[in-house]
Amino acid sequence: MRTVQSVLEAALAEIAGQAVAVVGASRTDAGVHAEGQVASACFETRLPADVLARALDAKLPEDVAALAIAPAPDAFHARRDALWKRYRYALWAGCRRSPLRRRRFARVRGALDLGAMREAGRALVGTHDFSSFQLASAEWHAEAARRGRTRSAVRTLHALEVSGAGEGEVRLEVVGDGFLRGMVRAVAGTLIEVGLGRRAPESLPALLAARDRRRAGVTAPAAGLTLVEVGFEPFRGGETPGNSGP
Amino acid sequence: MRTVQSVLEAALAEIAGQAVAVVGASRTDAGVHAEGQVASACFETRLPADVLARALDAKLPEDVAALAIAPAPDAFHARRDALWKRYRYALWAGCRRSPLRRRRFARVRGALDLGAMREAGRALVGTHDFSSFQLASAEWHAEAARRGRTRSAVRTLHALEVSGAGEGEVRLEVVGDGFLRGMVRAVAGTLIEVGLGRRAPESLPALLAARDRRRAGVTAPAAGLTLVEVGFEPFRGGETPGNSGP
Repeated sequence: MRTVQSVLEAALAEIAGQAVAVVGASRTDAGVHAEGQVASACFETRLPADVLARALDAKLPEDVAALAIAPAPDAFHARRDALWKRYRYALWAGCRRSPLRRRRFARVRGALDLGAMREAGRALVGTHDFSSFQLASAEWHAEAARRGRTRSAVRTLHALEVSGAGEGEVRLEVVGDGFLRGMVRAVAGTLIEVGLGRRAPESLPALLAARDRRRAGVTAPAAGLTLVEVGFEPFRGGETPGNSGP
Repeated sequence: MRTVQSVLEAALAEIAGQAVAVVGASRTDAGVHAEGQVASACFETRLPADVLARALDAKLPEDVAALAIAPAPDAFHARRDALWKRYRYALWAGCRRSPLRRRRFARVRGALDLGAMREAGRALVGTHDFSSFQLASAEWHAEAARRGRTRSAVRTLHALEVSGAGEGEVRLEVVGDGFLRGMVRAVAGTLIEVGLGRRAPESLPALLAARDRRRAGVTAPAAGLTLVEVGFEPFRGGETPGNSGP
């Protein structure tokens, strides 16, 4: 299967003349975009970082770009060392289909009450057990059992922002220290249901407490989701897009 | 070849139970997008316009949408009756490739001097012979000769606006009573060269006077071009997107 990781590994192997393993900070689902993915790789080269970045970018296909390369300590690991990630959900809440937005927006049929979505979102910000927003929790628990330990579904959501006018383009951004499988899409699906008036914003605390994925909203489509930024320094609110490191 | 016209004709033929000919206000090149195309078609139906619009939209593929249908006089012809069209060129003048913008933006390598582009654009606004911005003028003149008459390359450009910050996303919009083949893309290519400092803004009047396509800039890529709006009432400056009719 063609993935961003496989495409990067093939291009770097050509440059380095050896097999190169690439670790991405976030493993996104198929159809999810990334503006600010960070990946680590360990290989020997005499090329300076800026020359390497241009050489890599020149070998990448049109749908993947290398924006920058920087040297990192030997122990650096893009996934384990990431302290937070920012995802953006782009929603199209227009009264008509929008072919030009179909690959980058998830369509919502109806106007959204952004105030209700923000109220619901406030209940999610903070440190919680997000089991209710986790995809395929049966498989996840089976894997945890196989590994012989309990895996925690506790995560910290640092920020949740909703912007737009309720109709047309609406944006939902979340920043968290880590996201369970399907969590961003389940949070978005749940807040969309709140925005459409099908779920009360004050129902969110009980939904969290239930720790039951069947209680949350549907999984929103992958098309509207973008990994915006990965942070390697502690999150401070109000950061603007652009990677903070390494 | 699959075109927007052929897709509309197939869907309308299914609904009307007869062959339907569709005339688009603008025949755009492959790869050019449209937000506000207007098309006319003549057929008999008992369906009210709003029901017809929903029926048509339901039969269209994911990359074409019918936003509205309205009855028109028998003589209405979307192309002949259009008084003006607005096109937008979306440029990506970022320092790196942008895979997420590759289908909707034309990439420009370097920062753009928007002031110089606006100065150059002012020379184009008004009524001029735009032969210097016409693609394949040899074939065009051959067709004119075959038809036994002279075809005019005189067009009126009502407005030309450049917005953005010179880096990142830059937008160029043009409104005109009609555009020669390749004209919007040649105007964009020429103004990009002005923005990059490769062509002086004060050279535009002589370029128009030369009536020679080889003197203008390269044809900008189709990817960044969108037909925004078609007008059926006389153009008044400062109209906002959204079709004015019929």
